[in-house]
Amino acid sequence: MVSGARKKRVVLASGTFDLIHLGHVKYLEEAKKAGGKNAELIVIVARDSTVEKRKGKRTVMPEDQRRALVESLKVVDEAILGFEGFSIDKVIEKITPDLVAVGHDQEGIEREVRKAIEDKKFNVQVVRIGRFGKKELNSSSKIMRKIVESFKR
Amino acid sequence: MVSGARKKRVVLASGTFDLIHLGHVKYLEEAKKAGGKNAELIVIVARDSTVEKRKGKRTVMPEDQRRALVESLKVVDEAILGFEGFSIDKVIEKITPDLVAVGHDQEGIEREVRKAIEDKKFNVQVVRIGRFGKKELNSSSKIMRKIVESFKR
Repeated sequence: MVSGARKKRVVLASGTFDLIHLGHVKYLEEAKKAGGKNAELIVIVARDSTVEKRKGKRTVMPEDQRRALVESLKVVDEAILGFEGFSIDKVIEKITPDLVAVGHDQEGIEREVRKAIEDKKFNVQVVRIGRFGKKELNSSSKIMRKIVESFKR
Repeated sequence: MVSGARKKRVVLASGTFDLIHLGHVKYLEEAKKAGGKNAELIVIVARDSTVEKRKGKRTVMPEDQRRALVESLKVVDEAILGFEGFSIDKVIEKITPDLVAVGHDQEGIEREVRKAIEDKKFNVQVVRIGRFGKKELNSSSKIMRKIVESFKR
């Protein structure tokens, strides 16, 4: 891609990353790949307050630990906590990504990203990343259910 | 260190890494640091069968996923599953590490490593890594208890 040869493309991914699992890593790897060779991957990690407001539940791991853990992954160039109050517009204005990668379970985020792009005329491409291995423990909720079940025995 | 200048030192760390958290990452970072500049960190990830036998409980995440997740960390050069049947001797013979780093909760492993070194006259140094941030969610058991508690409410 011509534009890719000119500069490093910045890919923006996001999530809560509460109990980190291979599904997260695969999502981030696919996201970075979508930006082509030498892409830079910046990840927005959701604030505790945002998770409580949007998902109606508290996280297991606090936001600072979730952010540091995401940044310790090879595929991640930088992990940043989201804005208090949640703002896709402000995140895109701050990071100025070339691509925003949304996960299979981020339909709400995808709608809001597309709306922000339309409203603000951001020059940003949206890429949807598929779900990784349906049989694996690829969701934090599945992992939690398995833990709770094992404690009942 | 003179020997460090001659060749890259290999540090061996190990663990179950069932629900990965910052305590794991800090342990691995300290382990690698103990090997000096440009050390190589190889991590042995315990087999499911070994965890069942030694800890008397099943892991939440299967061994292949635990291994892949550990290898996706920046600090890790290579993650390998342990031997079926568990053998510290065979691991040391295979990896030929300069250092073996044991975590704060690996007293049993430390004893066995020291015994293997003595029995087989391995030229290996043992380094104990301290516990990271007592207040943080730095153990998989703590994380599990928190999850189970939150589901009771």
